[in-house]
Amino acid sequence: MTERIRIAIAGYGNLGRGAEAAIAQSPDMQLTGIYTRRAPEHVQPLDAAVPVRRLDDIAQHKQDIDVLILCGGSKNDLPQQGPALAAQFNTLDSYDTHARIPEYFEAVDAAARSGGNVALISVGWDPGLFSLNRLFGEAILPQGDTYTFWGKGLSQGHSDAVRRVPGVRAAVQYTVPAADAIEQVRSGTRPTLSTRQKHTRDCFVVLEEGVDAEQVRQAIVTMPDYFADYDTTVTFISEETLRREHSAMPHGGFVIRSGESGAGDKQVIEYSLALESNPGFTSSVLVAYARAAHRLKQAGESGARTVFDVAPGLLSPRPAADLRRDLL
Amino acid sequence: MTERIRIAIAGYGNLGRGAEAAIAQSPDMQLTGIYTRRAPEHVQPLDAAVPVRRLDDIAQHKQDIDVLILCGGSKNDLPQQGPALAAQFNTLDSYDTHARIPEYFEAVDAAARSGGNVALISVGWDPGLFSLNRLFGEAILPQGDTYTFWGKGLSQGHSDAVRRVPGVRAAVQYTVPAADAIEQVRSGTRPTLSTRQKHTRDCFVVLEEGVDAEQVRQAIVTMPDYFADYDTTVTFISEETLRREHSAMPHGGFVIRSGESGAGDKQVIEYSLALESNPGFTSSVLVAYARAAHRLKQAGESGARTVFDVAPGLLSPRPAADLRRDLL
Repeated sequence: MTERIRIAIAGYGNLGRGAEAAIAQSPDMQLTGIYTRRAPEHVQPLDAAVPVRRLDDIAQHKQDIDVLILCGGSKNDLPQQGPALAAQFNTLDSYDTHARIPEYFEAVDAAARSGGNVALISVGWDPGLFSLNRLFGEAILPQGDTYTFWGKGLSQGHSDAVRRVPGVRAAVQYTVPAADAIEQVRSGTRPTLSTRQKHTRDCFVVLEEGVDAEQVRQAIVTMPDYFADYDTTVTFISEETLRREHSAMPHGGFVIRSGESGAGDKQVIEYSLALESNPGFTSSVLVAYARAAHRLKQAGESGARTVFDVAPGLLSPRPAADLRRDLL
Repeated sequence: MTERIRIAIAGYGNLGRGAEAAIAQSPDMQLTGIYTRRAPEHVQPLDAAVPVRRLDDIAQHKQDIDVLILCGGSKNDLPQQGPALAAQFNTLDSYDTHARIPEYFEAVDAAARSGGNVALISVGWDPGLFSLNRLFGEAILPQGDTYTFWGKGLSQGHSDAVRRVPGVRAAVQYTVPAADAIEQVRSGTRPTLSTRQKHTRDCFVVLEEGVDAEQVRQAIVTMPDYFADYDTTVTFISEETLRREHSAMPHGGFVIRSGESGAGDKQVIEYSLALESNPGFTSSVLVAYARAAHRLKQAGESGARTVFDVAPGLLSPRPAADLRRDLL
């Protein structure tokens, strides 16, 4: 058996736990350490044999790490960690602040080049697999339109926005794609769709005691940027119902390219995900791309890369000849 | 403006015409010639300014061709043309005899290496985009099952089989995916599906005069390999109806990966195509990959490649930084 790829995880929240579980499904990989900013003794990995260490000490374990998966958040962790760790390790992350990807890419690229490392940024499903399908769609059908729908899924950002409304004790928000809008797009008519037509928003809210529900509802549905442009439903529930029925993190969505090939024929390409666990799936994508990062490094590459730069065959543990025989 | 990529087409049937139309949608490309085994004066290109020449003379025009798209058939043309032309040109083709891809790859690879050329084989949607989705599915969700459904679409091979039945003057056959089987797969239950459960077959048949219809129907539905394992419907129609209602070449299908990520959550990835014209779409895929073949050659590569070996960014005419900013 060839050497297993030695993977480490930086950050042990939902994504880090998902990555640990996904590595356990990959016989060609070995998890050599979990690195955390918390006190290591307070972190319980799924496999008790995996060492848990302080992130500050990670440089001491460089010889045990082929690829480091960064599982921190895009807002507060990755802008600093991404470049700092790419200077020392082959890394990958799921940086998802779309508007800032160009500047993040530049910062990580400079650091990765300086260290002779490969750093794959913005890996996951959006950005990630959805981005690939947007790219394939416009490259194959240049005369066309691309539509992205999200959900049904729990939106962390919108849930946080609801929680900030005075009188709200706890809340979750689901983004729901409009079924009739999707049907219109599938039909090949290439409709122009407003924000309101594409998605609705469902909020489940636990109130503080003695609060006026209608006032809270109004504050939510009129909130600019987050809810004012959508049809929003607010349902008030008990704390127990929230815990029982709304603790999972489902998500998913659709990327649809509707276009005309050269002779005027309508062609529709649709990609969709239905995920019981958003972090569980994102970390599965990360782990497959960790294999690719390792191979790019072995091939002598360095610098930042995205999913656009990675030949799909690099994601699979199987030899190229087997892939051609079995999957082509 | 940078130099346009000079493309030529070998073979001018449905696929060749589709490729010509797709190149016309691509401002970074220029069609420098159509090469045919027919008498060139009998070939009418969509654009009368495009030179039509004898395929036997193609070596004389090597200096005008960056990439040659092979639009011949997998059964009779490509096994000979693929290696012969890959020795002289950067090529791509849509070779789709799945069982023989390994040997075809080896033959084309040796020829392409000997000529210092890049040869992309089996490009299209199946093999091609469907293959990519089978690969992504098993790499990202190693614990899972992949399901491929085809249709609703016109099957050339099955139509030919019906036409060979004595008493049949003309016929078309549509492969129809079973809606309830697809729903079962989407639900994440990972069902085991028989051949009969996955697809049905619809035949539209024009009879010779004086033929017993029931006898023809029996000959079709009991035909081994093609129909015996399926629920097959045979509808007898007039030659005029056949021409009016069954002259398009729609196709499409579904690749669904249903699996569990590490913590046991069900995750479903679905890719589907709904195509008004099968050759129109296949040729659009070929033309996008022609751009990639040119770039691989410019990067110094040589030998046979498949879609598994091509980084998706190479399909787009846009700079990498634009793709990151707009599509990631």
